[in-house]
Amino acid sequence: MLENAFGTPEVQGAYQLHELGDFALEEGGTIPDLQLAYATYGELNAAKDNAILIPTWFSGTHQTWEQVYIGEGRALDPTRWFVVVVNQIGNGLSTSPHNTDGDMAMSRFPHVTIGDDVVAQQRLLSELFGIERLALVVGGSMGAQQTYEWAVRFPDRVQRAAPIAGTAQITPHDYLFTKALLDAITSDPGWNGGEYTSSTDVHDGLARHAGIWAVMGLSTEFWKTEFWRGIEVPDYQFTSRDDFMTNFMEAVFGAMDPNALLVMGWKWQHGDVTRHTDGDLAKALGRITARTMVMPIDEDMFFPVRDCAAEQALVPSSELRVLPSIAGHFGLFGFEQTYLDAVDAGLHDLLDTPV
Amino acid sequence: MLENAFGTPEVQGAYQLHELGDFALEEGGTIPDLQLAYATYGELNAAKDNAILIPTWFSGTHQTWEQVYIGEGRALDPTRWFVVVVNQIGNGLSTSPHNTDGDMAMSRFPHVTIGDDVVAQQRLLSELFGIERLALVVGGSMGAQQTYEWAVRFPDRVQRAAPIAGTAQITPHDYLFTKALLDAITSDPGWNGGEYTSSTDVHDGLARHAGIWAVMGLSTEFWKTEFWRGIEVPDYQFTSRDDFMTNFMEAVFGAMDPNALLVMGWKWQHGDVTRHTDGDLAKALGRITARTMVMPIDEDMFFPVRDCAAEQALVPSSELRVLPSIAGHFGLFGFEQTYLDAVDAGLHDLLDTPV
Repeated sequence: MLENAFGTPEVQGAYQLHELGDFALEEGGTIPDLQLAYATYGELNAAKDNAILIPTWFSGTHQTWEQVYIGEGRALDPTRWFVVVVNQIGNGLSTSPHNTDGDMAMSRFPHVTIGDDVVAQQRLLSELFGIERLALVVGGSMGAQQTYEWAVRFPDRVQRAAPIAGTAQITPHDYLFTKALLDAITSDPGWNGGEYTSSTDVHDGLARHAGIWAVMGLSTEFWKTEFWRGIEVPDYQFTSRDDFMTNFMEAVFGAMDPNALLVMGWKWQHGDVTRHTDGDLAKALGRITARTMVMPIDEDMFFPVRDCAAEQALVPSSELRVLPSIAGHFGLFGFEQTYLDAVDAGLHDLLDTPV
Repeated sequence: MLENAFGTPEVQGAYQLHELGDFALEEGGTIPDLQLAYATYGELNAAKDNAILIPTWFSGTHQTWEQVYIGEGRALDPTRWFVVVVNQIGNGLSTSPHNTDGDMAMSRFPHVTIGDDVVAQQRLLSELFGIERLALVVGGSMGAQQTYEWAVRFPDRVQRAAPIAGTAQITPHDYLFTKALLDAITSDPGWNGGEYTSSTDVHDGLARHAGIWAVMGLSTEFWKTEFWRGIEVPDYQFTSRDDFMTNFMEAVFGAMDPNALLVMGWKWQHGDVTRHTDGDLAKALGRITARTMVMPIDEDMFFPVRDCAAEQALVPSSELRVLPSIAGHFGLFGFEQTYLDAVDAGLHDLLDTPV
């Protein structure tokens, strides 16, 4: 076990752990005593028909959803809905390379798929709460991958789905982008084949990782307009592009566990609902019975609107709703009220649609 | 001096060298005995008013222009025009880190600016050919930077200008993109502070460099449609994305000298016509008297149309002509006849405009 403050409640806010016992993986192998870190907001009603599930994105946790998306008066209103955010396997809070021992630790952590996460989440919901059907699954980026996987794998369990800024099937470009991100880490001699003694050994690799995110995760216009000047963090005002790079981008990714990013990155690269249909995307998405709102971000450089629209066209009961954000993919962080309003409007419309 | 076949006539096709003697640099220092590698096509007429200059792009040489853009019946027709392609300083053919000795060699090579190249090119044209005025300057990417620099620095010497897929002023996003490219090289332990014994020592860094180009240099749609299947190289057929990555992308960049890429990258990052006007872009571009055709590529991920259009709006006698290419920035390689036809149409219209 390696110390890393990133995964602690002190940094992430309160969460609970649910033990799933030995968990068999799609790609082979078993995680003994899989633990999922989750947080809930609101109350499950007696009919158990007000449950919303939120799976997390690459490098993300329940915290952003709690701080940015969930709140009274919002679409994800905990006075009406019972919202469950489940941290994905390997994200540093749920079972991950740095917080396990023995056969699963560090470089020995196995390959985990999007499908593994969805199966684990389904068991958590059933075992803990007796939830067998979700009013909504909503997630961004890798959370969108999991959302699609839910809707394809368990059509009867998902009434509504809202994949934001993500796709059901990894694209070749995203595969290469993810590879560049991961190569930035594994090329650091301090990574040492995954057997570093502290995540700070991989400082340089994590900084390069952040540098690639800066190019692809935001947008040309974000940088041109110096949008970072308006990004609010407690007790700090960014004064230059380099300052923002160092004290936001590199600070955010530098706090994470390198092997956790690798586990999530591999999972991202292999996210593909056509694993259920021998590579047939139309067949896979045609299975979806959930009312689906597909929400790409207009300035997203690696989940461009056209890729998301092409998938939406294959989902029977679906709508495309393009979200505006100058921050591109990182619009997900909710820097702009206009973006948040658009998400809320989309989710309101979706949740108000009878199914 | 390091051996590297990339810069040789055997690989690049014939070129000549012109010696400029000691050459003082904008950022300080002097290159003793600066040599520019150039190639010419066609004949200079008696009035010396049919000269076209083409400066090269990052990692590029005169060869692509010769093979893809120049030819009888094309806009750049050597039976009508005298076309001079000058390889930029540091590109591995002109004076570069690997082909010099002593104080300029390898890690000791000085910072060179876009302005340095333009001044050197002007001297070459004057000394060799007595050319004092150009019918056209046209270049892509860093060649567009040099084209703008020509038009701003020497307005009386440039009758027409065609910057393709590039900007007059480095954007913050391009700066960060270039940084990610260069970091991929300098993070390779084999780079050894620029003092490697063979460029193959930096194989891994060059491969990561190529990997980032794959993400940003092409387009999401290029990869999605597997456009690489149609790219023709002699005696080879690409069979998979990984095959194309290895045998095109990594092969192309792996043949180059790492320090050459660093010299060009630094130059790219500091390309800015507002060096002449204390940071005032409107004032700098307002100086241009050349009839100017600004030609961004529709799918370009780092010189997006809107950035190019914003500059075009500041050039007095100018037009915006968007070029179509699914290959994005690498459309410059001329994979598509539709792209080449659009370039030729634009240049024809420009060259046919009396000035």
